[in-house]
Amino acid sequence: MRIGLIGLGKMGGNMRERLRRNGIEVLGLDHNPDLSDVVDEAALVAGLGDGPRVVWLMVPIHAVTPLIETLRPLLAPGDVVIDGGNSKWTHDARHAAYLGEAGIHFLDVGTSGGVWGLENGYALMVGGPQEAYAIAEPVFQALKPAGEFGLVHAGAHGAGHFTKMVHNGIEYGLMQAYAEGWELLEASDVVTNVPEVFESWREGTVIRSWLLDLMVRALETDPHLEDIDGYAEDSGEGRWTVNAAVDLAVPVPTIAASLFARFVSRQDDSPAMKMVAAMRNQFGGHAVTPAKD
Amino acid sequence: MRIGLIGLGKMGGNMRERLRRNGIEVLGLDHNPDLSDVVDEAALVAGLGDGPRVVWLMVPIHAVTPLIETLRPLLAPGDVVIDGGNSKWTHDARHAAYLGEAGIHFLDVGTSGGVWGLENGYALMVGGPQEAYAIAEPVFQALKPAGEFGLVHAGAHGAGHFTKMVHNGIEYGLMQAYAEGWELLEASDVVTNVPEVFESWREGTVIRSWLLDLMVRALETDPHLEDIDGYAEDSGEGRWTVNAAVDLAVPVPTIAASLFARFVSRQDDSPAMKMVAAMRNQFGGHAVTPAKD
Amino acid sequence: MRIGLIGLGKMGGNMRERLRRNGIEVLGLDHNPDLSDVVDEAALVAGLGDGPRVVWLMVPIHAVTPLIETLRPLLAPGDVVIDGGNSKWTHDARHAAYLGEAGIHFLDVGTSGGVWGLENGYALMVGGPQEAYAIAEPVFQALKPAGEFGLVHAGAHGAGHFTKMVHNGIEYGLMQAYAEGWELLEASDVVTNVPEVFESWREGTVIRSWLLDLMVRALETDPHLEDIDGYAEDSGEGRWTVNAAVDLAVPVPTIAASLFARFVSRQDDSPAMKMVAAMRNQFGGHAVTPAKD
Amino acid sequence: MRIGLIGLGKMGGNMRERLRRNGIEVLGLDHNPDLSDVVDEAALVAGLGDGPRVVWLMVPIHAVTPLIETLRPLLAPGDVVIDGGNSKWTHDARHAAYLGEAGIHFLDVGTSGGVWGLENGYALMVGGPQEAYAIAEPVFQALKPAGEFGLVHAGAHGAGHFTKMVHNGIEYGLMQAYAEGWELLEASDVVTNVPEVFESWREGTVIRSWLLDLMVRALETDPHLEDIDGYAEDSGEGRWTVNAAVDLAVPVPTIAASLFARFVSRQDDSPAMKMVAAMRNQFGGHAVTPAKD
Repeated sequence: MRIGLIGLGKMGGNMRERLRRNGIEVLGLDHNPDLSDVVDEAALVAGLGDGPRVVWLMVPIHAVTPLIETLRPLLAPGDVVIDGGNSKWTHDARHAAYLGEAGIHFLDVGTSGGVWGLENGYALMVGGPQEAYAIAEPVFQALKPAGEFGLVHAGAHGAGHFTKMVHNGIEYGLMQAYAEGWELLEASDVVTNVPEVFESWREGTVIRSWLLDLMVRALETDPHLEDIDGYAEDSGEGRWTVNAAVDLAVPVPTIAASLFARFVSRQDDSPAMKMVAAMRNQFGGHAVTPAKD
Repeated sequence: MRIGLIGLGKMGGNMRERLRRNGIEVLGLDHNPDLSDVVDEAALVAGLGDGPRVVWLMVPIHAVTPLIETLRPLLAPGDVVIDGGNSKWTHDARHAAYLGEAGIHFLDVGTSGGVWGLENGYALMVGGPQEAYAIAEPVFQALKPAGEFGLVHAGAHGAGHFTKMVHNGIEYGLMQAYAEGWELLEASDVVTNVPEVFESWREGTVIRSWLLDLMVRALETDPHLEDIDGYAEDSGEGRWTVNAAVDLAVPVPTIAASLFARFVSRQDDSPAMKMVAAMRNQFGGHAVTPAKD
Repeated sequence: MRIGLIGLGKMGGNMRERLRRNGIEVLGLDHNPDLSDVVDEAALVAGLGDGPRVVWLMVPIHAVTPLIETLRPLLAPGDVVIDGGNSKWTHDARHAAYLGEAGIHFLDVGTSGGVWGLENGYALMVGGPQEAYAIAEPVFQALKPAGEFGLVHAGAHGAGHFTKMVHNGIEYGLMQAYAEGWELLEASDVVTNVPEVFESWREGTVIRSWLLDLMVRALETDPHLEDIDGYAEDSGEGRWTVNAAVDLAVPVPTIAASLFARFVSRQDDSPAMKMVAAMRNQFGGHAVTPAKD
Repeated sequence: MRIGLIGLGKMGGNMRERLRRNGIEVLGLDHNPDLSDVVDEAALVAGLGDGPRVVWLMVPIHAVTPLIETLRPLLAPGDVVIDGGNSKWTHDARHAAYLGEAGIHFLDVGTSGGVWGLENGYALMVGGPQEAYAIAEPVFQALKPAGEFGLVHAGAHGAGHFTKMVHNGIEYGLMQAYAEGWELLEASDVVTNVPEVFESWREGTVIRSWLLDLMVRALETDPHLEDIDGYAEDSGEGRWTVNAAVDLAVPVPTIAASLFARFVSRQDDSPAMKMVAAMRNQFGGHAVTPAKD
């Protein structure tokens, strides 16, 4: 089988490599010509031969719609476009409808695996019709981890990205819970051996996990994380998770708290806490700390 | 009526003044002799004449127990010791029992009012037996605000400080909620007139309050709070509120969130967020921000 | 001055009355003809005489757009349409543009006051151009509370509803903080006089507020709130506040916690806690509670 | 090696079995004589032969102090008492001092593993002096999981139970985060295959973990958890974690939120939400739901 893969960055580049190792031919296209196998989308589609052709997009969210507009006239009924990036699930129905007008299938695929995916495989969460899923399944099989897990057809259009969004929302909560526990152990006088505590937790405990394994790795080289700053970006899915939960009236206190902790981590100073300090000064005469220059 | 008042700091000094304005004679004692009316506890008790004598303590939490030990041999059965400071409610039963062994009454009084108390009066929340409450009531009447509110006999020993603790716990939550709303307005492009918005809220809205009035005052001199740092102390009652709620299995999500926001405001860097950043780096290759020197 | 007022429900009906008491002539229209002064929008506009005419909408959010579509051909350049309902601020720019195509002004007005507004006045938060604000100002003056507060021109289109949204978000947090404190006092053995505690807090305390006054009223007739269920609706603004904060990367832990508490209050059973119970059973053999029929 | 083990319940009974399978002789004692190998503490100590003798306690928290008082006169200098139960870490220094007066060692051991420990091994977190750790190490080796992880000497007295407490606090946060994500997926229309989604997450994802494996098990027999109630106990460690964090000024928003969610899950009705409903009724005339009989 041969597919087109557009977007050969950190994720897409490794995915091309894993696909090739597992017997899928890949025509890659990137805005960086040094990474590309073809010069443009037309050449990519032309190189895929007879249909049904499969084109996998692994590009930033803002690049998806223009790319789909470029691809539609190049493709034919029965072909399949896959959005495997971190796109917002609410975009999927629109993209599916737009391609559907030309008889082209659309699948949204949430992809997890990060820098470990090349070796371990990518967990894939797929949304869209069964007919298209069946066409693309050899690609999914080549990308997914060995063994029985790591691939699911989660539902109709949008289900793949919705599922990946929730995966990441959970991830926020898990990371924050571990991080709070670590901070508490570090703050305690009584526990003197925190990196070894974390390492010991890798077997026999209720909280053993892959994230725990990664924390142990991080602590091996920097036992008190003195070399890095407490600054954490968010990539969108955490926000979408909270917003989706709010829209569906689902209480998500830990996921929201995790997201807010990241927001705070990026503030030089907290406006809200300025106001709290100002109020304390007003009613109690409590000293305020002058702002730093 | 004449009482003894030990502790003439920011709160105690103003309370002495308000008591005198309202016809209560006060013998004051402070570790600063310039503020004191008498030289020591013995002189203070001697100056109170026949019983029942009333001695009001307005001292830091750690000073209460030693002071009660000093006073017990100087006082007589039927006298009343009042702890009006920000003491922990769990200490009250012990102090009451210790004084009770000598027939001396104890009252715990939560006192609210801050720097405004001298003019507006102090809200008082009293715990202890009715007999002692009746003896001290003229003092309470002199301290409390004009009108029908601002004084309550909340229950037995401990009820005064417990009530004040909860008052402050609520206060944390209120301040944080206003502060979050202010930050959100400041962050918005569409609202261009935030100090006037807050001022307008002082009448007709659901959220009008004394705290709102104080925020308006703060914004009058510093419309964006540029001159102060987002650093907020906590004085103990917020922590005790959360701990009491945990012990009683009462969910207090907003009060706890408010307390945690203060903790975060005082951290140069968040250990937890270092760990979150470290995990993101481990699984996704996301860049970390090197620690500042 | 004469204005048209569409929507004469709980809010709109009282607003008509307050406007008339303060010298504004009002032509009212409602889907209930018994409440209406005119038969339809055309009659209403015709009854307003020469421009600039002012039409105030006080209708549910879903009714705003159709009503604006009905009104546009009836109105003339320079007229003013005011959306005073609980509309979402993101709709305002669209409505303003739609009316603006016909030279008609639009103002978005957040309106607070509830059932007390008739007597106390309505707090008004206005978004839109100064020219339109000036035309409608006599109406605002008639509706607002006496005194210097209760009216603000908060910014451009959307600023009125955004401000009201944040007002309500803060309101959620304030209510929840008080409610948590009340639950904690009720749960305590030591405080035996909770309604009197709340009443006493009305003067001299840091937490005195109008909401506190209302709680005292509620406790007067039902001291332990035994007659009502712990079930709280949300009217949209709380959700929008959290979503706006998420979009602007503003941490709002107490407002979000308050919203989630309402969501939980409406669940017969918590799906999330089913899963927590299921996990505890899986790893620890902890008994689960069978679901009720 | 031979040890005494007091407390042969769900945990202790399985631990005796695992110890025996791994070559440790065990004299067991329980208040249930059918489970016991000896009749009382004196017989147990007598059966352990020459010192240093090791007695492991696996009893409820309130039973620890009396048992230590019973054991002290029976033991000799150099013997080791181990508290392996879910005891509060703040008790450990006291127990260590009490036994230390008689020259007897004390170790506090946090023990994780639940019903899976017999087969998988128990993760052990040990606090106390190295000399005592060395004496008991063969027991630890017999209980711990195979492989290099699952055992840590975390620090001095109290470090074992403190570490286990934090482990459980993290566990609360992890469980809640997964549970929120599950509820959100269940609430969505777009994801139609939630149990398969969870199963698929077992490989390749960032959130793979042992708790995830257990959720998949639970969903296998009850795909929507219809048979169990959303009611979750807490066993103490979560509360202690939050209280310890408050005392150390460590922000733990997700762990606290998880604990509060359990509190709420056990309330027939939420007092706080009654108050919120009462306030909404007071200011807005919003209907309240009458209390159920």
